[in-house]
Amino acid sequence: MIRPEVIQKFVSIVGKDRCKTSPEDLLTHSYDASILEFVPDAILFPVSTEEVSRIMALASAENVFVTPRGSASGLGGECLAKKGGILLSFTQMNKILEINTENRYAIVEPGIVIADFQKAVEAVNLFYPPDPGSATVASIGGAVMMNAGGMRGIKYGVTRDYLLGMEIVLPSGEVMKTGTITAKDVTGYDLTRLICGSEGTLAIATKITVRLLPKPKARRTLLAIYDDIDDAGKTVAKIVEAGIIPATMELMDKTVIKAVEEAFHLGLPLDAAALLLIDVDGDDATIERQSPLIAEFCQGQGARNVRTSSSEEENVQLWAARRAAFGCIARLRPTCLIEDATVPVNQMVKAIKKVKEICERNNVQIAVLAHAGDGNLHPLMLCDQRDKEEMARVEKAMDEFVEYAMTIGGTLSGEHGIGVNKAKYLPQQLSATSLKIQRGIKNVFDPQGILNPGSFLEVSPK
Amino acid sequence: MIRPEVIQKFVSIVGKDRCKTSPEDLLTHSYDASILEFVPDAILFPVSTEEVSRIMALASAENVFVTPRGSASGLGGECLAKKGGILLSFTQMNKILEINTENRYAIVEPGIVIADFQKAVEAVNLFYPPDPGSATVASIGGAVMMNAGGMRGIKYGVTRDYLLGMEIVLPSGEVMKTGTITAKDVTGYDLTRLICGSEGTLAIATKITVRLLPKPKARRTLLAIYDDIDDAGKTVAKIVEAGIIPATMELMDKTVIKAVEEAFHLGLPLDAAALLLIDVDGDDATIERQSPLIAEFCQGQGARNVRTSSSEEENVQLWAARRAAFGCIARLRPTCLIEDATVPVNQMVKAIKKVKEICERNNVQIAVLAHAGDGNLHPLMLCDQRDKEEMARVEKAMDEFVEYAMTIGGTLSGEHGIGVNKAKYLPQQLSATSLKIQRGIKNVFDPQGILNPGSFLEVSPK
Repeated sequence: MIRPEVIQKFVSIVGKDRCKTSPEDLLTHSYDASILEFVPDAILFPVSTEEVSRIMALASAENVFVTPRGSASGLGGECLAKKGGILLSFTQMNKILEINTENRYAIVEPGIVIADFQKAVEAVNLFYPPDPGSATVASIGGAVMMNAGGMRGIKYGVTRDYLLGMEIVLPSGEVMKTGTITAKDVTGYDLTRLICGSEGTLAIATKITVRLLPKPKARRTLLAIYDDIDDAGKTVAKIVEAGIIPATMELMDKTVIKAVEEAFHLGLPLDAAALLLIDVDGDDATIERQSPLIAEFCQGQGARNVRTSSSEEENVQLWAARRAAFGCIARLRPTCLIEDATVPVNQMVKAIKKVKEICERNNVQIAVLAHAGDGNLHPLMLCDQRDKEEMARVEKAMDEFVEYAMTIGGTLSGEHGIGVNKAKYLPQQLSATSLKIQRGIKNVFDPQGILNPGSFLEVSPK
Repeated sequence: MIRPEVIQKFVSIVGKDRCKTSPEDLLTHSYDASILEFVPDAILFPVSTEEVSRIMALASAENVFVTPRGSASGLGGECLAKKGGILLSFTQMNKILEINTENRYAIVEPGIVIADFQKAVEAVNLFYPPDPGSATVASIGGAVMMNAGGMRGIKYGVTRDYLLGMEIVLPSGEVMKTGTITAKDVTGYDLTRLICGSEGTLAIATKITVRLLPKPKARRTLLAIYDDIDDAGKTVAKIVEAGIIPATMELMDKTVIKAVEEAFHLGLPLDAAALLLIDVDGDDATIERQSPLIAEFCQGQGARNVRTSSSEEENVQLWAARRAAFGCIARLRPTCLIEDATVPVNQMVKAIKKVKEICERNNVQIAVLAHAGDGNLHPLMLCDQRDKEEMARVEKAMDEFVEYAMTIGGTLSGEHGIGVNKAKYLPQQLSATSLKIQRGIKNVFDPQGILNPGSFLEVSPK
């Protein structure tokens, strides 16, 4: 608990209106998109770098825990006040400060929602590719701290790949810059990318500079339905082999298809084993060349049916199934846990079968989505968090699957991060030496340990 | 000086043949591609991770300085034994360990020459895009430690963007892994990219995993000649504005053109003010669409002459001018110093004019190359390092140009790194806080300070 006189000092920085301590406010800020809950002592809503700096300086002086928070769409408790203290919400620090069309970069505040930013740059014919599934709610600050990935990873990479630099506030309150606005920069260590993906444990971003691409002239969506998930996997391999890099390549299994169809009646066959949703983008010539080739690969590998869109409207319509997937699955059971282990792309179908086998053996309900182009699986484990016995089975299934993913060259997390949930698995992937180095780095940025306490390095086994 | 009995201990690890201490060997390993010279006490040529680990453990125990070295094509003394001690040469640790076509990655040892690796992956229809000017001699290990850029940066990015993971040896001798072989990975801090660009000061890479792209189906080269360098700049702006991203966009000024023509008689007009050398690559349709459009932009902005190649042979022929440029310029005077400050792309022509003005005022001979698509300038200052008075003028010109680049949002180094030469400028770009954090990170990896002593963080003003 923070002493009332200390809370008053924080109030003197942001004002009464932007310091919330009522039970309702604390409760509504105690969760994210996981099933974790931690209640903060107070929530502050800074609107400037200077405020953030003063808040951190005060927190350092008073030894108060501070946890930064974007839109709270994270899946592992990263933005929760795991040890109480201040929750620093960036929802009111969400301006676009500059969109530079000549040098193709933009500078934004961390709280801006990704989709809003994407719209703004597309309006001037530019393009911000990172597109996590949660783009309509997730903030760029959160995406930077988690190095968010998403659907377009296969062609365009992840958040990290679009970062040019940042203004950051250290736990001490010191403000500094990383990176530049230039396309190339090798001046000093790459602190920009060290902070990206650090899950809010090293520093707080107050300005974020991202590079932009020219907006692709057009895109086209293909939807292929399969009777056998192996054939979908073979199609992905064929496309990779042919050297075609689609913008997205999403896979849905039969449980997801059925759930979506029953909720939305989009005309998907209820008996299908899998579907692939593939986007190609670029100039018209590229699309004209690639889309029939991809359709041919789908058919050649046994797709029952392949539909190619003929307009942007139809693209959106075909994508409706994927956009709705999480929601449709989530309504099947009270709790939906999303796994995120990522494997080499040629191991993907094998890994999907394995996770299904594991879940079946442990009597756990499962549905599978995947960013198929980059081997990024999203097994959805459906359960009821109030049922302890069931949750034990779910945990056992997760443990088994993580162990399996490690044996085939996979990683614990492709894009969701480690957070609280996966910290126990860290030693399976990272050696004691690696963890020691990472803890050393944390200590350089945050010697008092006041920023985002209870995070992955702290709760992982030593 | 290392005591002879300690040298004997190193010999017991690598054998007599792979420990060189003769004056000729020490002399030939005392320089890189800059004008710096530092003589090591001994050169070791490890061939395995285990040897590197044992060498570092011994160096730690005996407090011996160790400096890693690839092909020594660096431009700032990064791979020189600045404080004596052991030079660790990776020229004999240069195997390709795996090229994985299904998952499009490769694992290599650090000593392999970039161009050799590129050829090997192109033979199986894959593509490793980073292409520094020195690719025919530079090693991948060096490129990783310097985060090397090069000609294709505008479209394909830099070394950092193709790194998946590494096996590294810490100064203590401990061996650990960073990253994975998967396309996405957010497990723990991004140590891979922290080490990339660290100029060999944090750890030694013993295995490097890079992702690969499908090999572009074709490429086409355009050569445009200008009477006014401003028109070349306007052409670049036009291409950027149109949303076309060529694979390369190289600019040469009149001094470079003249030097190349006088050496090679390629048919370049001696009175031209500038030329642009532009590559487009991809599938045939893209090339057919983009190349006439680019030719049109060149002509529209006043190019005197635009030549579009019609075969891969002709591409290579047109590129001969650029490939030969450094050599041709270097023969004009005994010493050629390559500046590398990088500016926002819309400031490039202004910066070129500024550096010429500065050099003229300081009576310094200059020629200018640039990776024009990303604002990465390479002003070449021609001088004679034996002439102290001239070198003082060169240094003054460099100081002035760096100061100018800072005022227009530039960076000290786009791709060559800081090394010894530019360390004095560091505080102009990085705040005291940033340098403090970077020194803290160095200390986490190398608490004894035995790895690559005398590097940028050490010699920069505090």
